[in-house]
Amino acid sequence: MKRYVFGFDFGTLSCRGVAVDLETGELAATAEHAYKSGVISGTMKHRPIRLKDEWFLQDPDDWEESMGIVSRTMLAQGNILPEEVLAVGTDFTSCTLLPVKEDSTPLCRLEQYRDRPNAWPKLWKHHGAQVYAERIEAYAKANTTWLKKYFGNSVSSEWVYPKILQVAEEDPDIYEEAAYFMEAVDYIVFMLTGNNTRNSGILGVNSFWTEERGYPDPQFAKALKPLMERVAETKLAGKIVKVGDCAGHLTKRAADLLGITTKAVAAAGHSDGAVAGCGAGINKSGSMMLVMGTSTCHQMMYRDFCSFDGVCSIAADGMVPGLYGYESGQPATGDVFQWFADHCVPQEYVRKAKQEGKSVLAFLGDLAEKLKPGESGLVALDWLNGNRSILSNYNLSGAIIGLTLETKPEEIYRALVEANIFGSRRILENYTENGVRISDIYAVGGIAGKSPWIMQMCADVFHQEVRVPLIDNVPARGAAACAAVALGKVDKISGCRDFEEASERLIPKGVRVYFPDAEQSARYDRVYTYYRKLHDLFGADDSFMKGLKELRRDEADHE
Amino acid sequence: MKRYVFGFDFGTLSCRGVAVDLETGELAATAEHAYKSGVISGTMKHRPIRLKDEWFLQDPDDWEESMGIVSRTMLAQGNILPEEVLAVGTDFTSCTLLPVKEDSTPLCRLEQYRDRPNAWPKLWKHHGAQVYAERIEAYAKANTTWLKKYFGNSVSSEWVYPKILQVAEEDPDIYEEAAYFMEAVDYIVFMLTGNNTRNSGILGVNSFWTEERGYPDPQFAKALKPLMERVAETKLAGKIVKVGDCAGHLTKRAADLLGITTKAVAAAGHSDGAVAGCGAGINKSGSMMLVMGTSTCHQMMYRDFCSFDGVCSIAADGMVPGLYGYESGQPATGDVFQWFADHCVPQEYVRKAKQEGKSVLAFLGDLAEKLKPGESGLVALDWLNGNRSILSNYNLSGAIIGLTLETKPEEIYRALVEANIFGSRRILENYTENGVRISDIYAVGGIAGKSPWIMQMCADVFHQEVRVPLIDNVPARGAAACAAVALGKVDKISGCRDFEEASERLIPKGVRVYFPDAEQSARYDRVYTYYRKLHDLFGADDSFMKGLKELRRDEADHE
Repeated sequence: MKRYVFGFDFGTLSCRGVAVDLETGELAATAEHAYKSGVISGTMKHRPIRLKDEWFLQDPDDWEESMGIVSRTMLAQGNILPEEVLAVGTDFTSCTLLPVKEDSTPLCRLEQYRDRPNAWPKLWKHHGAQVYAERIEAYAKANTTWLKKYFGNSVSSEWVYPKILQVAEEDPDIYEEAAYFMEAVDYIVFMLTGNNTRNSGILGVNSFWTEERGYPDPQFAKALKPLMERVAETKLAGKIVKVGDCAGHLTKRAADLLGITTKAVAAAGHSDGAVAGCGAGINKSGSMMLVMGTSTCHQMMYRDFCSFDGVCSIAADGMVPGLYGYESGQPATGDVFQWFADHCVPQEYVRKAKQEGKSVLAFLGDLAEKLKPGESGLVALDWLNGNRSILSNYNLSGAIIGLTLETKPEEIYRALVEANIFGSRRILENYTENGVRISDIYAVGGIAGKSPWIMQMCADVFHQEVRVPLIDNVPARGAAACAAVALGKVDKISGCRDFEEASERLIPKGVRVYFPDAEQSARYDRVYTYYRKLHDLFGADDSFMKGLKELRRDEADHE
Repeated sequence: MKRYVFGFDFGTLSCRGVAVDLETGELAATAEHAYKSGVISGTMKHRPIRLKDEWFLQDPDDWEESMGIVSRTMLAQGNILPEEVLAVGTDFTSCTLLPVKEDSTPLCRLEQYRDRPNAWPKLWKHHGAQVYAERIEAYAKANTTWLKKYFGNSVSSEWVYPKILQVAEEDPDIYEEAAYFMEAVDYIVFMLTGNNTRNSGILGVNSFWTEERGYPDPQFAKALKPLMERVAETKLAGKIVKVGDCAGHLTKRAADLLGITTKAVAAAGHSDGAVAGCGAGINKSGSMMLVMGTSTCHQMMYRDFCSFDGVCSIAADGMVPGLYGYESGQPATGDVFQWFADHCVPQEYVRKAKQEGKSVLAFLGDLAEKLKPGESGLVALDWLNGNRSILSNYNLSGAIIGLTLETKPEEIYRALVEANIFGSRRILENYTENGVRISDIYAVGGIAGKSPWIMQMCADVFHQEVRVPLIDNVPARGAAACAAVALGKVDKISGCRDFEEASERLIPKGVRVYFPDAEQSARYDRVYTYYRKLHDLFGADDSFMKGLKELRRDEADHE
C-alpha cells in the first residue's frame, strides 16, 4: 500500500490541493477548484442586498464544495485509494473570520441569518471594520503595553477583534447567536474533525494572543464594548495547538466529503502566508519570505524576539515551531496589477495581446520590462487597498504622480509594479533599521513564479539576492508538510518527526537566484527617493487621503 | 453682387473656415480640413528623425494646403463667386513660431534645412524650450521691471524668446539663415499679402513687447546670448498693426491659392484664443472668456491696467481695440480628456460606446456626469502638459490621488475633468484676489458647445453664471469679424466701422446660461480644498515633479 498526505490551500478565489507520496516525496496529483461565488462585494449573490464599500465576504459552502471536488479529483488523477490518504493539512487566507454554532455550522448557512451580512465570513481583505480598528488601537495604545511589544503598536482592520467588534456593534443578535468566531482555517479543521482547535501561530498574529498570557483579559474586551467582556473565554474558546500538531481524526461526514476514510488525521490549520515556509523548505532563522500573489505577505523567521513599530505581529512558533514568526505585508499586489489590466488598458493592447496569445497582464509585462527605472517620469503609491506595513492604515489610497500627455499604459503599469516593490523595500528596511538581520530573501507565490522581470526588480531594488524555489503550489505543499508532521505525532513510521525532516523528504530543492545588478540598483535608488518622499508625505499624516475617503463615504451615505 | 468675408481659424489639427454674408450676417458656408501631418512629435514624418520629448512641430505646407481646400470648398458650397469675397481674416494657435526667408518662405521648406528640427515651426505646445524659458526668466527677474509689470513675473516656454533662444543655442546656422521669426498667423498674413505685419495684441502676449517701449532693448537680448543682440530690429522686424487693421491686398499667388481675387484684403492676423471674443460678440470690460478646446485660454477684457503675478500677459488692444487683454491659460484640457480616452479606457467601454453609437469620450461623459462631486474619493492635478497659469511651470505634471481597487474609469475621467475646472477656478480667483472684477463669464470652444455637464460644473465650481454663445466656429467667426473691420478701413460701405458694429451685423445673439446650484457648489468647495492643497504642495515647490522629469530626461539621454 502506498501512503499519501493531502495539502489543501484555501486562497482568495479557489482551493488548490496537492497529493504527496510520503515515501518518494513525489507529487502524485494536484487540483484546483474556484469558489462558486468567489469574493462577495457590492451586492450579495443569494439575494440583491447591497454591501457597503470595502466589505468583502465569502460563502463557506463554496469552501466545502471546492475541497470535496479537489480531493476527489486528486484521488482519481493519482490513482489513490481512499485508505492510502493518511493525513490532510490545510491553510487558509488569514484573517478570514466567521461566526459558527456550537457544532461548527456557519451562521450564514441558517435561513434566518442569511440576509444579514454580519453573519457571513468576512474575508481577510474586508476593510469595513476600519473604524473599529481605530477605536481598538486608540484604547490599546493608551492602556496596554502589549500592542507595542507584539503588534507593531497598531491594529489592523483585518484582524479578529475589529471584525468581532463590528458584528457586536452592527448586529448584536449575530454576536449573541455565535457560539464561536473562528478563523476560517480553524473552522475547516473543526468541520473536518469535530474538534475546535486554534493554531497559536495565527492567534499570535491576528488575535492579540501571546504565549505568556493568552488572550487579553475581560477588562480589555469590556472596554471595547460591554457585550464583549467574556469574548475570550466564550466566542474565542478552543484548544490551543501549534503548527504541526494533530487536531484529530476525520469525522464520517468529512471523510465522505473528501472521499477518504476516518483513519486519516487532520493537522492543525495554518495561515496561507505562514505555511509557505513549510512548503518551500525554509526553516532557518534570518529567512525572509515574500509570498507574492493577490497581496504580499512578508514572513520572517527569527531566533530572537525583537519588538519594533511597523511590524504587524511577532508570534512564537508563527511559521515553524521554535522560531518567532514576524509578519508584515502589503494588502494588494496582484490585485493592483489585475485592477489595472481590467480597468485601464486600451482596446488596442487587448487586441494585440490576443494576437500574440498572451494575457493582457503578460502583454503589459513584456512592454513594461523593456523600460528603464525612472524612464517614465512616474512614481506611484501602492496603497490601492490601504497600507498594512509599515503604516497599518487603511485610510490610505493609491496615487500616481508625473502623468503627461505622452504617458503610456505600460509606463503606468510599471510605476504600479515599482511602487509595490518599493513598498516591500520600505518594509525590509524597517526590519534592518530595527536590528533584525535578513540573511536570505525568498519569494514564492504566483508572481514569483510567473514574472522573472519583477523578481529581478526585487533583487535590484532590495540590493540583495532573491531566491525563488522552483516548485508550484508552495502553500498547498506546506499544508501537506503540516499533515506529514501531524501524522508523525500519531504514526512515527509513516509521518515526519519535524519540519526539517518533512522538508528533506517532501520538498524539492531547486531554486532560481536573482542577483542584484549594481547599475540597476543605483537607478532604482534614485526613483526610490521619490517614493519615500510620497510615502512620508501622505503616510506620516494621513489627513489628505483620509479626508478623500470621508468625502467618498459621505456622498455614498447621502444617497 | 453679394459681398462676403472669409474667416480662417488655424487650430492645432485643422483649418476651419466660415464664409459670412456682409449684408445679412448669415453663415453662407463652413468647411474644415485636417493638416496632413497633424502634430509632428516623436519622429519626423518626411524622414525618420527622432525628436526629443516635448517637441511638437508642424508643417507649413499643411497650413497652406488646408487653407486652399477650405476656401474652395466654401466657394462651392455657398455658391460664392471669387470676386464676391472682399476680405479674409485669419487666426492661429499662438505662440506657434517659425523661421522664414526674406520673402516669407519657411526655412523648413528648403531641402538643405529639411532634416533640422529647429528649422520647422514650433507649435504652441512645444515645451522643449523649457530650460531656455527658465534662463530668460531668471535674468529678466533680476534685471528688469517689465516682466513683473506685464507678464505675471514669469516666462512661458511657449513664448517667442525661449523658442528663438532654443534655435540660437541648438542650431545657430538656422538662426543666422532666418530673415525673420514669425508668429504663424503673421506668417500666414505675410504669405497672403507679401507684407510683414505683426499684431501688437499678440506681441504684447508672447514677445515681451509693450506699447511704451516696443521690444526689449539689445542689451537684454545680448545678455541672453550675444548672437541675439539685434534680434528685435532684425529677426522680429515688421510693421506693427492692431487687431482689425488691414494688412494689404492679396498677392496673385495667394488669390490663386484661395480661388478668389487680388481685390480682396487680408486683416491683421490674431491669435485663436483672443479672436474668440470678436467671434462671440463679446467686447465689454469685465468679460472673462474661457476658450475651452484642446487647451483652455482665459481671455479677459478690462478697462484698467492692473499688474499682478500669475497672469500670463496684459496687452493693450489684446483682444479688441481699446481694452486691455489679460491672458491666462491651461495648456491641456481636451488633450487630457482625449489622452485618457485613447490610453486608459478598457475594451468593454469601447464596445459599449460603439453599441450606443457614441464616441468613447461621450460614453465616458455620460457615466461621469452621473457621479457626484467627491463621490469617487479621487482628486487630480490637471498639469499633464504643465501649468501655464498661475504657476507658469512646465516642469509640473499630472497626478491622481485616492485610487482604490474599486476605482472605475469614469471616476478617473471625472476627476480629470474636475481638476481642469478647479484649475480654471484657481485662475479666476487670482484675478479676483488682485482686484480685477469678473462681471461676466463666457465659455466658447468645442467643449463649451458639446458638454453641457462640464459647463454646469463650471458654473457650480465658479459660483457664477457661465454663458455659452449658441454659435459654432467662434474663432473662425472672429477672424471673419476682423476681416469685416479691416475691410471697413478701405471700403467704408461694405466693411464695418468697429467690432461693435461687426458684432451687431455678423454675430447671432443667442446664449445658453448655466446657473450655479448652491448645493452642488458647496460640494465642489469641499473637493476643491483638496485640489488647492495638492496644487500648493506640488506647485509652490516644484522640486518633486521637476525631479521626476529630470529622471525621465536623464534616462532618455542615456539611451
